[in-house]
Amino acid sequence: MKIAGQHYRTIWVEDDGDAICVLDQTRFPHEFATRRLRSWQEAATAISEMVVRGAPLIGVTACYGIALAMREDPSDANLHAVARSLTDTRPTAINLRWAVNRLVARLERCTPAERAAAAFRESAALSDEDVATNEAIGREGLALISCIAAAKAPEQPVNVLTHCNAGWLATVDWGTATAPIYMAHDQGLPVHVFVDETRPRNQGAYLTAWELGRHGVPHTVVVDNAGGHLMQHGEVDLVIVGSDRTTANGDVCNKIGTYLKALAAHDNGVPFYVALPTSTVDFEVADGGREIPSEERSGAEIRYLNGRTASGDVVRVDILPEGSGARNPAFDVTPARLVTGLITELGVFEASPAGMARLRGAMAGAASGLAAAG
Amino acid sequence: MKIAGQHYRTIWVEDDGDAICVLDQTRFPHEFATRRLRSWQEAATAISEMVVRGAPLIGVTACYGIALAMREDPSDANLHAVARSLTDTRPTAINLRWAVNRLVARLERCTPAERAAAAFRESAALSDEDVATNEAIGREGLALISCIAAAKAPEQPVNVLTHCNAGWLATVDWGTATAPIYMAHDQGLPVHVFVDETRPRNQGAYLTAWELGRHGVPHTVVVDNAGGHLMQHGEVDLVIVGSDRTTANGDVCNKIGTYLKALAAHDNGVPFYVALPTSTVDFEVADGGREIPSEERSGAEIRYLNGRTASGDVVRVDILPEGSGARNPAFDVTPARLVTGLITELGVFEASPAGMARLRGAMAGAASGLAAAG
Repeated sequence: MKIAGQHYRTIWVEDDGDAICVLDQTRFPHEFATRRLRSWQEAATAISEMVVRGAPLIGVTACYGIALAMREDPSDANLHAVARSLTDTRPTAINLRWAVNRLVARLERCTPAERAAAAFRESAALSDEDVATNEAIGREGLALISCIAAAKAPEQPVNVLTHCNAGWLATVDWGTATAPIYMAHDQGLPVHVFVDETRPRNQGAYLTAWELGRHGVPHTVVVDNAGGHLMQHGEVDLVIVGSDRTTANGDVCNKIGTYLKALAAHDNGVPFYVALPTSTVDFEVADGGREIPSEERSGAEIRYLNGRTASGDVVRVDILPEGSGARNPAFDVTPARLVTGLITELGVFEASPAGMARLRGAMAGAASGLAAAG
Repeated sequence: MKIAGQHYRTIWVEDDGDAICVLDQTRFPHEFATRRLRSWQEAATAISEMVVRGAPLIGVTACYGIALAMREDPSDANLHAVARSLTDTRPTAINLRWAVNRLVARLERCTPAERAAAAFRESAALSDEDVATNEAIGREGLALISCIAAAKAPEQPVNVLTHCNAGWLATVDWGTATAPIYMAHDQGLPVHVFVDETRPRNQGAYLTAWELGRHGVPHTVVVDNAGGHLMQHGEVDLVIVGSDRTTANGDVCNKIGTYLKALAAHDNGVPFYVALPTSTVDFEVADGGREIPSEERSGAEIRYLNGRTASGDVVRVDILPEGSGARNPAFDVTPARLVTGLITELGVFEASPAGMARLRGAMAGAASGLAAAG
């Protein structure tokens, strides 16, 4: 999407072909900076330190990491060791593993001498696929927003609430939850976004608000506590969030706090949609609440945060009392019963075992279509 | 309660009788400071700048403000002018008006010469009443905690989740939601508190965590997003929150985000209790969601926050992207159907029209008992 009128993706190969370039998301919204990744270790660090984040983007970053590694040592041993290290950077991210495994399978069919070039080519293809997937999600979601807009007075914006950042910064472009929003906005359909701050890492306030603002989409930041009240008062027309992993039952594992918004949407009859690429579906897991291990991150993410002082310096401040500890579960699971529908690149599906079975059929059909076309 | 082993109240008369002393809550948790109030104007500023906050405490502070004013000029004209100015400091606080009106009515029956001494005496009595009310709430809530403890393995702590600060810092001592917790802890019953950070003003992280820590109660700060996940995983035995206003239907108006925790508690079968002095019940209002006007505060409360830098300086930082606006609804209403029970100084009541009618009867009985005793 656009930053100050100029189109960007979140990851690209430098013109000299020497390094991968990413936007440094740890420095948003206070500073705009890019970071060059010159080795697989730098790619791994970028993922683990959340310089890049978001399931689709870390998948692409890991693949480019393998490409950088293959340039140094294209042996089977190095391929598998690097793939394992990159996969281990974020254990909850299902499509990080999916993207890495897909690339490894393809590189295993190449000679070592072919691997670096093939890995760069495959990574670029994965980037383009991600963009195409998100555009398709955007079209599906746009139809839902258009329906809601049709029932409102003309010029009345459709109010969407979103949590965390399932925006273009989490993907290569468009985003997942934001793709329908950007498409609506670009087509002149009035849309306004309530952006959950999303403590502790503030991805809503730091990233979603930033990217919506740069692209020119009207939006308002609210604290994570406010969404229920807004829904009680009819101020939210629909919720769209992303998903880190969706199970065979239709349960949705996403950023901590998603479940609370789903409860509030359900209690107030507000449609609650989850936008996701089908690559993040995990058919191996049925009951998300019982079967998905819950990742706990450091309490330091709660204690410290970055902000700008009056003089413009960016400083890290400690906001907790001395001696108080903090617990930091990173994800929660929203049960399928609270989800109105899953917006995927293959259509909108019901979040239920039956809906997921239909989605699986559509995925098989799309794969065989691709295979036939290829 | 205790700070570094020494017992404190939140407000007291200095030994020399010359001034009122309060804890400066705007500087918690980064600094511990007290502030002397030498005139009614200083008392008014302390209330409006939230040096003191919490419905019970601002009522007592305003009364001491009148006492200070009566020492300078005990005329009828000054009494009424000062009372009006102090009431206007926080227009939404119901029991600020209640406390001031009660004191004015009593002082009107005194000669001007008697007023200063009477006002100090009445303010001290109001302080003691608040402490007694909270102790009674604590005993009622302790019985609930003891029941839960009895069903757990010995030494397993009872895990309480609380939102915002309905702690001793919001009252003269004990707090409302925290009174049962302090009582359990002081009696050796193992208790552990999950403290919601409570964005945007962070009263949980800044005040509740601070006061629990100073008194030695085990606690863990969590972001407002985390409570639902903790309840899904059986980590919360009960929720206790405070209330700014409770209606004749049993609806509870409290700090923004309370409703989301009530939804999660209901969805997971976790008892959700509200602790309140009966002075905060508003029998004039039935349906809290429709009838209580919702207060919106400045978006600056979301944009800016205070923290300590690595060198120990306390600074204010801006955490939002430039150009992004923020909405800041301050309270939400939790419908009675989500509330397990109301813990008051007169017992535990059902949050329903029938339960509230019984509470009203108990309040009338207590008032006539007091009148008979007096």
